[in-house]
Amino acid sequence: MTLDDLPTPALILDLARLERNLARMRERAAALGVQLRPHLKTAKSAQVARAAHRGAAGPVTVSTLAEAAYFAAAGFTDILYAVGIVPAKLEQAAAIMRQGRNVGSGVDLKLITDDVQAAQAIAERGRALGVSFRVLIKIDTGLGRAGIAPDADSLLPLAAALSQPGATLAGVLTHAGHSYHARSTAEIAAIAEAERAGVVQAAERLRQAGHDCAIVSVGSTPTALFAAALPGVTEIRPGNYVFFDLFQAGLGTCGLEDIAVSVLASVTGRHRGRNHLLIDAGGLALSKDVGANEHRPHTGYGLVCLPGGALPLPGLAVTDVHQEHGLVAPATPEQAGTALPFERFPVGSRLRVLPNHSCMTAAMYDRYYVVSGQPGAGGEVIAEWDRINGW
Amino acid sequence: MTLDDLPTPALILDLARLERNLARMRERAAALGVQLRPHLKTAKSAQVARAAHRGAAGPVTVSTLAEAAYFAAAGFTDILYAVGIVPAKLEQAAAIMRQGRNVGSGVDLKLITDDVQAAQAIAERGRALGVSFRVLIKIDTGLGRAGIAPDADSLLPLAAALSQPGATLAGVLTHAGHSYHARSTAEIAAIAEAERAGVVQAAERLRQAGHDCAIVSVGSTPTALFAAALPGVTEIRPGNYVFFDLFQAGLGTCGLEDIAVSVLASVTGRHRGRNHLLIDAGGLALSKDVGANEHRPHTGYGLVCLPGGALPLPGLAVTDVHQEHGLVAPATPEQAGTALPFERFPVGSRLRVLPNHSCMTAAMYDRYYVVSGQPGAGGEVIAEWDRINGW
Repeated sequence: MTLDDLPTPALILDLARLERNLARMRERAAALGVQLRPHLKTAKSAQVARAAHRGAAGPVTVSTLAEAAYFAAAGFTDILYAVGIVPAKLEQAAAIMRQGRNVGSGVDLKLITDDVQAAQAIAERGRALGVSFRVLIKIDTGLGRAGIAPDADSLLPLAAALSQPGATLAGVLTHAGHSYHARSTAEIAAIAEAERAGVVQAAERLRQAGHDCAIVSVGSTPTALFAAALPGVTEIRPGNYVFFDLFQAGLGTCGLEDIAVSVLASVTGRHRGRNHLLIDAGGLALSKDVGANEHRPHTGYGLVCLPGGALPLPGLAVTDVHQEHGLVAPATPEQAGTALPFERFPVGSRLRVLPNHSCMTAAMYDRYYVVSGQPGAGGEVIAEWDRINGW
Repeated sequence: MTLDDLPTPALILDLARLERNLARMRERAAALGVQLRPHLKTAKSAQVARAAHRGAAGPVTVSTLAEAAYFAAAGFTDILYAVGIVPAKLEQAAAIMRQGRNVGSGVDLKLITDDVQAAQAIAERGRALGVSFRVLIKIDTGLGRAGIAPDADSLLPLAAALSQPGATLAGVLTHAGHSYHARSTAEIAAIAEAERAGVVQAAERLRQAGHDCAIVSVGSTPTALFAAALPGVTEIRPGNYVFFDLFQAGLGTCGLEDIAVSVLASVTGRHRGRNHLLIDAGGLALSKDVGANEHRPHTGYGLVCLPGGALPLPGLAVTDVHQEHGLVAPATPEQAGTALPFERFPVGSRLRVLPNHSCMTAAMYDRYYVVSGQPGAGGEVIAEWDRINGW
């Protein structure tokens, strides 16, 4: 099967780019002396997770309990669910831990919280369910989303609530997601140092109070790539790096030639008078994430390549989307007068769209069509890899 | 099972609101003297489609061939695929037509195009596949997306290409999607009249040239609701009306009390210092569609209700989303200083989020949890209805 045989829209994964991205982050983790625990919220794929660990079912981070159950079933035993746990989900969490026991030594599923009342509920439910939930305390190091400050009064009450039958304090965790809005790699490096310093400060406070704090976890693709050093940190949790996207290219963490996923689309119309093509990749097939325009104006809803992939066609973008329609048009007002090469793109011809935000775009598909990405390999589809969507 | 038992995030469908919305559009179609062919791109559900037709498997519009195959399998035989067909999809289209033959008299699957070269390819493929594809010509009446102008030179060549063995001209079709950006219902009515006049003009040109033009199809929820009269039109194709959403409420086509779908979410964190709650409905669970803010500023990514539903809590919105995190905070800068009622919303408590754009939000779920919506009925889940996502 080749790209020409695929139904459109379809999600294409370039294996050569993926492998290069994975190796780059493995080398970073090794150089920084930390464990790599990739965040699989981007790929949601056991095959990608294994590739990230050179074939091993290594440590992973997940964003839903559906992902946790999927990776447990695929043989992964060291799983961190990195969204604040709610008590009603603890029974499912305990089932995933037991699910692992059926296949071997059990799943070490770790949870997170930043709320003392929730921590008490976790321990209570743990006792009722006959398990001890391993829980990390979420620390805020500048993103301002979830987590307590490194010097917050509630740190020790949280640790105490997690140090009773039914719960175990497993460590501390932070996510410097504000690195996505940095203006330079130097600024990313500064955010990475603040991320490190904050979470290490929290770990030291816990240890001084007599708590064990085995895991000190930081993570985002930009800070993992540009941190100068990570003393005191035990692991990094980058996610987007497996595929990258136009946002990351604009931020400067990757090049356009590193973007490993794209959407194969068919031309469904061409309109000379309006100087646009229509493709069958719209708001559902691409997502409506326009964040990439922050760093890279005129990216629209994605950039357009020939079906063979490689690099974007200059001056074109998906400038608007409706549910099942994408409009391909000149990317900037200055280019609006330049007629599109309509003769090259009859109805039924194909394009590839590089995504603004690969986490959001990939989530619309139930599988990857994998191409080798090797020069000269053509469009042969060498594998189909699954994904775990939903909740 | 009640709402309290559901996993979160979950998609909730209020049956009383749905039935009221469906009845309203049936009454409109009857008053206008036209067939109702609801666009199921919003609901993607056989149960909703049957409810729209009082239990019958009536005419439907679809946005993907996956939907067409799903509705054919569910017993619907009059299906219009309203996205420009590409030749590579014709074999699948023919299979859907045959699929119907297995269960009875066959599926009358209608296609659309606006491209002479594609029309020729349709007829050629029809001959090769041993079928005659019924095709409508797409007319542009002001949206400027797909379609030819009513007075375009290519209308008669298109009709000729579709009047040979392998293809049949089934009619003309338009979609005045620009009605979504109208500033008043009077403006919507004016757009509806232009939509009608344009597509009827094209139909008359075809008839004067000796072609049959049985179907004259218009459609959007706003124009269907506010058209004064539709002489010459045979059918309307509204879609969003089944559920409505915050965009439509801002446009003035529905009230907040008509929005039939919402996302049930759990509080995953509460942060007094930052004056926000976190919920487990983020960019994937709600979509990143912010179009509703055009008509209704400070809608953010959705408005927040108590878990029992009804109307939004004043002054609150989902002000930001990450992949699996929604931030619930004061909706406007003026309200930013008002502390949230944190005591009412411990971790694990639940909220319902009214969606900005129900087509996009619903697409993230594989099922509806249906509640009766009757006063006093409580949160009992009375049914689960499926959806057909993907392509």
